[in-house]
Amino acid sequence: MIPRLYIDAPLETGAAAPLSEAQAHYLKNVLRRSAGDEARLFNGHDGEFAAAIAELKKKGGVVAVKGKTREQEIEPELALYFAPVKRGPLETIIQKATEIGVARLCPVITERTVAPKMNVERLQAIAIEAAEQSGRLTVPSVDDPMKLARLLDAWPEGRRLLFCDEAGDDEREEWGGREGRATPVLEALKDMDSKAGGWAVLTGPEGGFTPEERMVLRSKTFVTPATLGPRILRADTAAIAALTLWQAALGDWRNS
Amino acid sequence: MIPRLYIDAPLETGAAAPLSEAQAHYLKNVLRRSAGDEARLFNGHDGEFAAAIAELKKKGGVVAVKGKTREQEIEPELALYFAPVKRGPLETIIQKATEIGVARLCPVITERTVAPKMNVERLQAIAIEAAEQSGRLTVPSVDDPMKLARLLDAWPEGRRLLFCDEAGDDEREEWGGREGRATPVLEALKDMDSKAGGWAVLTGPEGGFTPEERMVLRSKTFVTPATLGPRILRADTAAIAALTLWQAALGDWRNS
Repeated sequence: MIPRLYIDAPLETGAAAPLSEAQAHYLKNVLRRSAGDEARLFNGHDGEFAAAIAELKKKGGVVAVKGKTREQEIEPELALYFAPVKRGPLETIIQKATEIGVARLCPVITERTVAPKMNVERLQAIAIEAAEQSGRLTVPSVDDPMKLARLLDAWPEGRRLLFCDEAGDDEREEWGGREGRATPVLEALKDMDSKAGGWAVLTGPEGGFTPEERMVLRSKTFVTPATLGPRILRADTAAIAALTLWQAALGDWRNS
Repeated sequence: MIPRLYIDAPLETGAAAPLSEAQAHYLKNVLRRSAGDEARLFNGHDGEFAAAIAELKKKGGVVAVKGKTREQEIEPELALYFAPVKRGPLETIIQKATEIGVARLCPVITERTVAPKMNVERLQAIAIEAAEQSGRLTVPSVDDPMKLARLLDAWPEGRRLLFCDEAGDDEREEWGGREGRATPVLEALKDMDSKAGGWAVLTGPEGGFTPEERMVLRSKTFVTPATLGPRILRADTAAIAALTLWQAALGDWRNS
């Protein structure tokens, strides 16, 4: 296994690139690598490069950049807006969404969000690790949390939002039964423009969205409401499932 | 929140149903419920019933079964065959697959499976909890592990297998480049018979399947090979994504 590393520095053949303290530690003490061993590097815009470890020290290291192994690819413009949940499932969302291929990870505070303390830096580190292991050439950014109302007010023109309208059975009935129910994701995305002005997926907290939030969301012309099957999914499951379906219907999981 | 409980006993209006020690403990000490409080019960075949807690003791309890709240539904005949992985992602697979709606969970030992000690009883308990919380009326069974070769040899006639043919880029090229690549899941499942003789999804261990295993799988007429996008997914992510796509394409996530 050749380790892949995300490097926040320009990459070109013949250059030397710096390793952080954490990367040097990981290569040396976890993977037991040393000078001369191979690695792969990417920085989000220059493609992927072969590299050789030049030096591993306590406070960092250096790799020698060799030939380009992959050209940078254009990735779908897909963001995930998600209500933050407790640490375990929150980290699952970050890791899996990165593997599935989102470009941005945006925590959104909704009425029923039981907001835990969120360490955005730690979440960003999880996204980097998932990007390295999944073979991605980019790392999704993790935003600071934002309130749902503010997000909707500042929505950019042309951009579309797949709203995963999960709710308990009682609430579904309150909403007006079958008429008020969202359509399945694949049906809702059928014949939609995969580019538009970019896409985003919105998933809620464990308690779902309030009737008021659902009404506001459904009133927006940029919103496509959709449902994720007849069972109640946990917040992390819903996020993974919705992103999977978007990628399969409109993203790079289709045949190119 | 009205607690839902899986009861391994017949359910009918007017009857009394037994609670296990764990259920009595959960209701009493975690949810702080007591005699007279409401619950919902299901047993996998009689539908869902309203119930009132009659008695909560240290070693168990009793609930009084009231009216039926939901009729039993016919669920898709979908099994997940998965290579067991280490405890965290293994439990994620069991929990999420239950929410998404599989009928059976079957660990499969492949060449590259780094088989951990698996506690089937604990995995079954996770499936029960996930079924209770997701609003399901059934609990998927968790099988004892079985070798891949034995599984394929004993494959029932008419049943189909969606084989998630994940592999690293190198191996994909070895396999013969684009010609040898599997098609995307949605394309592979298009116009397939959702009933057939039942369906199953097969996902591999972290290291993927060996070239020999892939060749054997692809030679079987009951196998539909498919790919889950251009990135390398972890074993648990692949299982969740594949089941999601099957449910959306052929299962009960479609409009009924």
